[in-house]
Amino acid sequence: MQTSPIQSPTIQTIDDLETPCVVIDMDIMERNIATMQAKCDALGLQFRPHIKTHKTPDIARRQIEAGAVGIACQKVSEAAVFVDAGFDDIQLPYNIVGEKKTARLAQLAKRAKITVTADSAPVIEGLATAAQNAGVTINVMVELVSLKRRTGTTPEMALALAKHIVDLEGLHFAGIMIYPSDAAIRPRLLATLELLAENDIPVETVSGGGSGAILEAAQLPELTEMRIGTYVFWDWSSADKGWARFEDCAMTVRAMVVSAQEPDRIILDSGSKTLTPEVRDGLYGYIVEYPEARIYQLNEEHAYVDFTACESTPQVGDIVRIIPVHTCVVTNMFNQIYGVRGDKIDTVWDVAARGLVW
Amino acid sequence: MQTSPIQSPTIQTIDDLETPCVVIDMDIMERNIATMQAKCDALGLQFRPHIKTHKTPDIARRQIEAGAVGIACQKVSEAAVFVDAGFDDIQLPYNIVGEKKTARLAQLAKRAKITVTADSAPVIEGLATAAQNAGVTINVMVELVSLKRRTGTTPEMALALAKHIVDLEGLHFAGIMIYPSDAAIRPRLLATLELLAENDIPVETVSGGGSGAILEAAQLPELTEMRIGTYVFWDWSSADKGWARFEDCAMTVRAMVVSAQEPDRIILDSGSKTLTPEVRDGLYGYIVEYPEARIYQLNEEHAYVDFTACESTPQVGDIVRIIPVHTCVVTNMFNQIYGVRGDKIDTVWDVAARGLVW
Repeated sequence: MQTSPIQSPTIQTIDDLETPCVVIDMDIMERNIATMQAKCDALGLQFRPHIKTHKTPDIARRQIEAGAVGIACQKVSEAAVFVDAGFDDIQLPYNIVGEKKTARLAQLAKRAKITVTADSAPVIEGLATAAQNAGVTINVMVELVSLKRRTGTTPEMALALAKHIVDLEGLHFAGIMIYPSDAAIRPRLLATLELLAENDIPVETVSGGGSGAILEAAQLPELTEMRIGTYVFWDWSSADKGWARFEDCAMTVRAMVVSAQEPDRIILDSGSKTLTPEVRDGLYGYIVEYPEARIYQLNEEHAYVDFTACESTPQVGDIVRIIPVHTCVVTNMFNQIYGVRGDKIDTVWDVAARGLVW
Repeated sequence: MQTSPIQSPTIQTIDDLETPCVVIDMDIMERNIATMQAKCDALGLQFRPHIKTHKTPDIARRQIEAGAVGIACQKVSEAAVFVDAGFDDIQLPYNIVGEKKTARLAQLAKRAKITVTADSAPVIEGLATAAQNAGVTINVMVELVSLKRRTGTTPEMALALAKHIVDLEGLHFAGIMIYPSDAAIRPRLLATLELLAENDIPVETVSGGGSGAILEAAQLPELTEMRIGTYVFWDWSSADKGWARFEDCAMTVRAMVVSAQEPDRIILDSGSKTLTPEVRDGLYGYIVEYPEARIYQLNEEHAYVDFTACESTPQVGDIVRIIPVHTCVVTNMFNQIYGVRGDKIDTVWDVAARGLVW
């Protein structure tokens, strides 16, 4: 068992953990991994888990062993951690820009199959220069803009960019990427695929993504691959949206009551440095033992909770379990997270790719 | 110069830094340190900087050298970092609860003067047991509830708790703590001090806190000490509230444009893992080069910016500087931050107390 440099080496059960801390129910996590793999298998989709939710090679390894074809991550610094950990098929659904970043990416491409996305000519040209300098091939997908209007371009521009990729030494045109791949995007995707077909540009992969989008994947039969992250732990947002059940939530934050002056201002030791300020319906998490409690405000080290709707009120020193609004961002706050079976600590994971944003 | 395990050792100028990253203008920081110390000196207040904004012993050392009496931090794990770094007067304005935490606190009290706060009898009794077991004295202030209604108790309960502290072996009653110490709290503070005086309990310290509250400190002449954190870097919230000027903001995030499809959806590589989801007036930061730009949404690795009100629009690969909404929480996302003089890197700081929440 890997042990933390900070916590005591004598951690055997959850009672040995300091609060606040992040606990992962291993049985639930393993079931989530198996269930999503089976769902993708049934749809005939290759499954490529996004590591943003756990940022931990050991958990990604479990996803690969369950049948995933590779992983997705967002930044070069994250990819470096996973290449070092032995992963050999990594997709970055992101525009990698800048000479230093593309040069590092090209070095990683000597050790693993690297696929990135692009939505403009400057991005593509930077990748080509780096690939040529390093003597490697970088696989490049073109990103189609979704209804989310984040990165991504139009069908017409996608064709132009695909041609540009095909023409440039060091690059291989790898297909089309969409996030999130909601069914409503299908007309735009079909238009793009038609333009590419008319120009005899083969599309080996149509990569979709999103924890909600998997529910609509059957309506987008052109997809060949799905990227999903949150499913491994799920969270309160997912449960509230109907993407998962409460009993599928593998992550809880253990937090302690440190002040209990009045029922409408009970204070926990898990503030925004633990739960993050991500909010859903004005609340910052769901307390398992007190479903009617409302976490209505956070400061960095304080959660303000209103227990007036609850049958009882916890006291100073009591520990509660919180299902976070969004698990991916909580993982990013912690150097270590704990895998448990029942009350027993099974594994202490270093969150190896925590805080890697470049 | 301390170098990062991740970034290249050849960092000489800001152009050598990857994006996104956190840059501190050393000249501005030094001016902020001197200015706030002078303000407290002029008010006859002892100044105790809160390290939450930088989490870095080297910066705290500069605050002490400027005249601060000691530091404040929020959690035992943070205090441990600063005791290890040689700091000998540390206040934790927080209820430290639980046998393991209080035992660790008592061990720290063997190596430094440790002062904590309490707002209930169970907190006080836990501290006393730990102090007695370790054979040390822990200084305990009673927290008075402020208009913020976070932790803290009433004047009547404050008296009862002060008596309890005085009676218990291993504890020393150190005074009254308030956060934030706005002037409007004065009637409650005076009532508390009167009760304590009537009971012959001396109050050596009245500790106030808050970056805004310092502006009202002259109206609260009973204060003997101020705890302030954000002033060392300031931020967009502070400037927007009139607590500081824009030219006092020492921290900027350097971010790169990675997608520029349309003026209302320019995407930067600095998402919520960099800027955090803290928001002010619906915006997630202020772009120095484009004051009219609106950072209107963040995902973990993407900032969505609307440049339609700007005279020009940046292109893919351009770098912008962002003044964050709240600097303390941004520091907590990064393992290293960079101190610069002009464009030259002066110092690479490891954020030694990053992510320490217990």
